[in-house]
Amino acid sequence: MVTDVLAVGAHPDDIELGCAGALLAHRARGDRIHLLVMTTGEQGPQAALSRISEQERAAEVLGATLHWGAFHDGAIPEGRPTIQAVEAVLRESGAGIVYGPAISDTHQDHRAVSAAVAAACRRSSRVMFYESPTSVGFSPSVYLDVAEHLDGKLTAIRAHTSQVLKNHLVDLEAVEAQARYHGFRARIRFAEAFEAGRFVWDLFVKGDHAGQAGIPTALEEVR
Amino acid sequence: MVTDVLAVGAHPDDIELGCAGALLAHRARGDRIHLLVMTTGEQGPQAALSRISEQERAAEVLGATLHWGAFHDGAIPEGRPTIQAVEAVLRESGAGIVYGPAISDTHQDHRAVSAAVAAACRRSSRVMFYESPTSVGFSPSVYLDVAEHLDGKLTAIRAHTSQVLKNHLVDLEAVEAQARYHGFRARIRFAEAFEAGRFVWDLFVKGDHAGQAGIPTALEEVR
Amino acid sequence: MVTDVLAVGAHPDDIELGCAGALLAHRARGDRIHLLVMTTGEQGPQAALSRISEQERAAEVLGATLHWGAFHDGAIPEGRPTIQAVEAVLRESGAGIVYGPAISDTHQDHRAVSAAVAAACRRSSRVMFYESPTSVGFSPSVYLDVAEHLDGKLTAIRAHTSQVLKNHLVDLEAVEAQARYHGFRARIRFAEAFEAGRFVWDLFVKGDHAGQAGIPTALEEVR
Amino acid sequence: MVTDVLAVGAHPDDIELGCAGALLAHRARGDRIHLLVMTTGEQGPQAALSRISEQERAAEVLGATLHWGAFHDGAIPEGRPTIQAVEAVLRESGAGIVYGPAISDTHQDHRAVSAAVAAACRRSSRVMFYESPTSVGFSPSVYLDVAEHLDGKLTAIRAHTSQVLKNHLVDLEAVEAQARYHGFRARIRFAEAFEAGRFVWDLFVKGDHAGQAGIPTALEEVR
Amino acid sequence: MVTDVLAVGAHPDDIELGCAGALLAHRARGDRIHLLVMTTGEQGPQAALSRISEQERAAEVLGATLHWGAFHDGAIPEGRPTIQAVEAVLRESGAGIVYGPAISDTHQDHRAVSAAVAAACRRSSRVMFYESPTSVGFSPSVYLDVAEHLDGKLTAIRAHTSQVLKNHLVDLEAVEAQARYHGFRARIRFAEAFEAGRFVWDLFVKGDHAGQAGIPTALEEVR
Amino acid sequence: MVTDVLAVGAHPDDIELGCAGALLAHRARGDRIHLLVMTTGEQGPQAALSRISEQERAAEVLGATLHWGAFHDGAIPEGRPTIQAVEAVLRESGAGIVYGPAISDTHQDHRAVSAAVAAACRRSSRVMFYESPTSVGFSPSVYLDVAEHLDGKLTAIRAHTSQVLKNHLVDLEAVEAQARYHGFRARIRFAEAFEAGRFVWDLFVKGDHAGQAGIPTALEEVR
Repeated sequence: MVTDVLAVGAHPDDIELGCAGALLAHRARGDRIHLLVMTTGEQGPQAALSRISEQERAAEVLGATLHWGAFHDGAIPEGRPTIQAVEAVLRESGAGIVYGPAISDTHQDHRAVSAAVAAACRRSSRVMFYESPTSVGFSPSVYLDVAEHLDGKLTAIRAHTSQVLKNHLVDLEAVEAQARYHGFRARIRFAEAFEAGRFVWDLFVKGDHAGQAGIPTALEEVR
Repeated sequence: MVTDVLAVGAHPDDIELGCAGALLAHRARGDRIHLLVMTTGEQGPQAALSRISEQERAAEVLGATLHWGAFHDGAIPEGRPTIQAVEAVLRESGAGIVYGPAISDTHQDHRAVSAAVAAACRRSSRVMFYESPTSVGFSPSVYLDVAEHLDGKLTAIRAHTSQVLKNHLVDLEAVEAQARYHGFRARIRFAEAFEAGRFVWDLFVKGDHAGQAGIPTALEEVR
Repeated sequence: MVTDVLAVGAHPDDIELGCAGALLAHRARGDRIHLLVMTTGEQGPQAALSRISEQERAAEVLGATLHWGAFHDGAIPEGRPTIQAVEAVLRESGAGIVYGPAISDTHQDHRAVSAAVAAACRRSSRVMFYESPTSVGFSPSVYLDVAEHLDGKLTAIRAHTSQVLKNHLVDLEAVEAQARYHGFRARIRFAEAFEAGRFVWDLFVKGDHAGQAGIPTALEEVR
Repeated sequence: MVTDVLAVGAHPDDIELGCAGALLAHRARGDRIHLLVMTTGEQGPQAALSRISEQERAAEVLGATLHWGAFHDGAIPEGRPTIQAVEAVLRESGAGIVYGPAISDTHQDHRAVSAAVAAACRRSSRVMFYESPTSVGFSPSVYLDVAEHLDGKLTAIRAHTSQVLKNHLVDLEAVEAQARYHGFRARIRFAEAFEAGRFVWDLFVKGDHAGQAGIPTALEEVR
Repeated sequence: MVTDVLAVGAHPDDIELGCAGALLAHRARGDRIHLLVMTTGEQGPQAALSRISEQERAAEVLGATLHWGAFHDGAIPEGRPTIQAVEAVLRESGAGIVYGPAISDTHQDHRAVSAAVAAACRRSSRVMFYESPTSVGFSPSVYLDVAEHLDGKLTAIRAHTSQVLKNHLVDLEAVEAQARYHGFRARIRFAEAFEAGRFVWDLFVKGDHAGQAGIPTALEEVR
Repeated sequence: MVTDVLAVGAHPDDIELGCAGALLAHRARGDRIHLLVMTTGEQGPQAALSRISEQERAAEVLGATLHWGAFHDGAIPEGRPTIQAVEAVLRESGAGIVYGPAISDTHQDHRAVSAAVAAACRRSSRVMFYESPTSVGFSPSVYLDVAEHLDGKLTAIRAHTSQVLKNHLVDLEAVEAQARYHGFRARIRFAEAFEAGRFVWDLFVKGDHAGQAGIPTALEEVR
């Protein structure tokens, strides 16, 4: 049985910076990966068009299906529309494991997406929050070993060429140091670290029954 | 002297799930109970009309006066209109003790109402926040003994027939387990648990002077 | 029915600095006050004898029964002997409400007494922790109005003449500022603030049944 | 490949109350279970002898190997001897997953054992802390589904007949409510909840390499 | 070399209540002070006009350059416009040290401004958050000695005559008690206390290179 | 005027791992550095003698005066003797800034030293706690720029040859990643991060009056 995994980000590159290693690890065990990117990052110092194709390349690196939200960069609303966008992909994908940005973040879009993920997943048993360059006071409790996927993660981030070149907060060296730091804390070599929104540890991995119960039916959506 | 107690909820059933036991205990000592329900919960899988009459029945069970906010289910705004709705009932009722939903919640309406209660009660000395099915990381510091009021609480929740039948997060068995769990933590049998927004413990119960000072006058409202 | 209240401190003056206002408020409603002071503070720059008589005078100001532990100043052990000393007075007094020092403190004796109070009161429903001059990161959730008892509190502290004269951390002006600061936070004038170890709010004040269940019988003591 | 799991408790019944459901789940997937009980609980209102045989029966219910520490009930030391006792069993068992009591607890023995587990496991990648009746402010981030093991857990606790009969804090009804409460929070039916001391989520479950690295060699023990 | 310091507040008087002492200390060492006040506080019980001139007088007392945001009192939006207003002054002033209101506050405008300051300063190395009368659970980690500037602070607050006379939360006595309380905690006489959003302690004070890197260029603004 | 800075560690190498960068930065501005190492680390897999000379070499690298405590590796007591050892050096050195290990640590010696530093410095205005390889949940609020001192830090750690070769938790690569990670968080390149026990930010750096008040006189020592 295949598990579906959904990662949600506000802008192109957010998912790759936050949890590309985890997604590649999921991929390695045969899980199906879905990305939901809420905006095209059109406020950055480059054409939105290039950011779209960059995100498409990154999705290829991750072997993931790419979904787009239709929100405006810098102005993702808190509340129903954002939640419904997550719910739609959650329902369509049947994802039992969801990754989103951590709530304590100085970027307004990250906070809005984090809240929307938590709301949409209010019936899910596995919701994890990843660290961003603008996270504040991030305090993880769950780690994933990404030693075999760090190169892949860096490749996925590099797909966002415009950001690597122009955005000081997209810093490949810092990404590697972060993985090494969290790895040392977790007593492995390289780790991605997550705050657990809700995390049921399934000892029998593949019987992902708990997660399935978490998918909202059309009738029970956000009110 | 009678103390007025105000409980605020986003949707029909929120107050009953969160603090019906406390309200019945207040009622038992002669306090006057006021409910403010912000929406009719019209996005749920049933007619808004039935939810209104369900809430009216629940208010009867609690012996409470029912006030309605005029907000849209799923879209309660953060900010002034919501705060002013709470202030209006706070002033009209003269409530010296206020219950609202806890701020750490995955439901956007609960967060908005929680923030509005905190803002409206910025001069109150007794503001308590209750747990919801969608609360996250709820960490209570004040408990109330609800052993004699648990049946009444379940009756009040059952008045919301549509939710008991169709909403998986309204789970009477879980409500009882929650009261037993918090009760065990508090070294009594059944308890409701609250985060204290601000809590002045009045050793002489009835001279509720501190609370009275907390009611905003028309001139000092939210700016 | 009279409620018995127990306050525990490591050294002469600790109780007065931490919760004399609360104790005087309890006294004002007819509660019986018991003090347990663990050491005679004999390491300070004055004779132990004078500190004993200072504490006796302070107990008189509070209208309280004074019990002494038999521990050494600066070397109160963590663990069974200290816990048993608290349990003995807890049982003898039948106290249903207990005050002790907060656990986050840089003074080793305060931490040891705090842990002993929490352990001895593991079946109690009302355990409150007070702030000390050496507390760190104190974050209160329950306040008591001490406006009418601030003078009495200062008088009780002044009974510890040796400390007021020689110990820079016993600072009457700072005590008053502290009460005013916490009072402002609680939206009253002067308050003492407490961290709630466990706090069941009894709406009917005098039927202190919950607390009574908290007194360990001889058979159930610390194992 | 078989994973070895170690659970550590201060007294007979601590492990069963804290994580019997998890241990039975581990057992169900073929893991080997080891118990380390630090004292015989000889200070309780019954012969130590009966508590020993009660613990032996409980270990049978769990299908676990039982190890005893040689400490005194109520007086487990913080520091090296306790840490070395855990290290010895950790090394002998080769355990890659360890369960111990949560550190925020009012019982001095629980705190001492919690600290010793954390110290002994300073190189382990999977250390989880369980809730006790005397835990305070327990805030879990990892859950295990124990729906199929709740009966087994209750059976294991019932093996401690002397405690079920005489210790008010061993309360089978409260145990069930606790599992239901945490289950509801985790969006499953019954759960055990854990604070993650360090938790590397292994997507491929059985290749428990990270944990193995955590076993101290004789040369690298506690200094 | 002169360091530029920016303080941001939602309403006239917020900055003076929160950090006038710190600003005067900065002024005393030759730093240049900039104030950004987001609204004219026009919802209060007095003419907006008088609040504008009050703020102008307060800025004079502080020796500061005054900037106004153009937002509506009580309705400062969370998100891009507010962030851009902070960014504009941040860029124009070249400020390397920024003070804003703490995020845990019951006033919606304070929260919105706090979030905007954090977002605008996402590349800054020195961002500090001050306490307000409506702050909740404020837990400072950095203190400034304001003994020599307390009179100046009270003078700056008194410039807001309309508030001192009519707003119960502007309480000069409480301001002094607050400074004395935090001072006692910091082991000095009078202190202002701050939560550190991000704080790089510069041992060589004047070479404020880290801060300079924090100023967003036009191309890198909030997306 | 020269400021004296004291760093305290449990074992040889603890100070270097925790705050060598900060100490070198202090040194660079002319501060006098004092080290207090509580044990010789004699339980490690090498002769105590070699660890002593390793620590002496590290002190030379830091340009620091070295003091030794006389405690046993793995068995540093919590309480008076440890506190008095810190107080003695604090008094002798006149240090106004003190660095010690963070309290949340799985190593018993680190916890004991952290508590002793906090107790001894109960009158100090600048006490900072550093991260160790065995720290847990470290959450810094104050950063120091160590870009120019990272090489020096690594040199100081390398002086502990026996540990670099044999102790897996002394990992130079992880040290560099840690500095880069904290640096990225602080928006500089390389940083050491500290929890602030008490931190008064002195805008005029050299007039270290606040700190001086923090030195206990002989009469006011730990009671």
